Amino acid sequence: MDAPLPEPEPLKALIEALRRLPGVGVRSARRMAYYMLQYDLTGADLLSRALSGAVQGLRHCARCNSFTEDEVCVTCLNPKRDPSLLCVVETPADQNMIESSHGYRGLYYVLMGRLAPLEGVGPQELQFDRLLQRSSDGLVREVILATNFTAEGETTAHYLSELFRAQGLSVTRLARGVPAGSELEYVDAGTIAWAIMERRIT
Amino acid sequence: MDAPLPEPEPLKALIEALRRLPGVGVRSARRMAYYMLQYDLTGADLLSRALSGAVQGLRHCARCNSFTEDEVCVTCLNPKRDPSLLCVVETPADQNMIESSHGYRGLYYVLMGRLAPLEGVGPQELQFDRLLQRSSDGLVREVILATNFTAEGETTAHYLSELFRAQGLSVTRLARGVPAGSELEYVDAGTIAWAIMERRIT
Ligand SMILES: [Zn+2]
Ligand SMILES: [Zn+2]
Repeated sequence: MDAPLPEPEPLKALIEALRRLPGVGVRSARRMAYYMLQYDLTGADLLSRALSGAVQGLRHCARCNSFTEDEVCVTCLNPKRDPSLLCVVETPADQNMIESSHGYRGLYYVLMGRLAPLEGVGPQELQFDRLLQRSSDGLVREVILATNFTAEGETTAHYLSELFRAQGLSVTRLARGVPAGSELEYVDAGTIAWAIMERRIT
Repeated sequence: MDAPLPEPEPLKALIEALRRLPGVGVRSARRMAYYMLQYDLTGADLLSRALSGAVQGLRHCARCNSFTEDEVCVTCLNPKRDPSLLCVVETPADQNMIESSHGYRGLYYVLMGRLAPLEGVGPQELQFDRLLQRSSDGLVREVILATNFTAEGETTAHYLSELFRAQGLSVTRLARGVPAGSELEYVDAGTIAWAIMERRIT
């Protein structure tokens, strides 16, 4: 056969665009495209609008760097929040997790990433200067480092803690330990080791 | 905290829309949304346009049922194709695979699915009447059933073969056997069993 594969241009363009999503290879992109076109035209339409709505309607909060529709987000504007506490997280998802714990009443800063030198993500890419400006507003007293307990999250926390200490701020890190409600038998050994090392007098 | 989680409306809408994609749960949808908004605004824009372009620009070919921009697709209109052969596949991806084998010069019919009674997909949902009308054009002599070699694909092939035989057409199925270039040691036993059963005199 000399003819190219019989794939119309709009379908090709859709598959290519879906492939740009993280974790989506060419096979999944194809499956997604066929599925939407065959069974969920409404969903395809919704997604198209949602994408352009988000691209046009969202920006980074001038104070916490999370996504917001306005100059400053509702969380940062909330007068009930304690401005002396600043919790640094990697992503808005992490912020949501902490919010849903109902255990925190301070403010946030969302890094939108973590230090990853091998991927070319350094202090400049994460705009640490903006964060340091935020933390030096004269109100913040304590910075809670809530980056992930991964190698990269730990590196980020370590790096930031030195910068904040140089600003004279008190720096804390989320406690590591056995997850609430879990049975020791099913907790991994590394977590147990940390829980023993950081044990508390009750 | 009485306030809802701090997620602006356009972001919520985007995450909801991404969740409609097959195989995408709420966590992946979130990750995709954050990623696009943070690192690939161009991609988000491209995807938005590609979706509306595909929804508006594509329809089902009147002859083969695959996606096309026109009433009838280029494959169906190709005069070099043998109109006496009709190959029935489940999806456009399967059609592409057969095309790329360069071993087929007939025409196609794309089911856009397979019989799956448990999911409520029966002969009516797959519009078998349209397929039977297509195969009774007086030119088709042989129907090649190229549905998948899965339980559902086999059921579909079996069901269709009876309908086509009733039309007086010759019905064939893709050969089952050891994949080209593979070592027997690494081929699954079921495949070997089929290859022995369907062995050929050389
Ligand atoms: Zn904010
Ligand atoms: Zn066609």
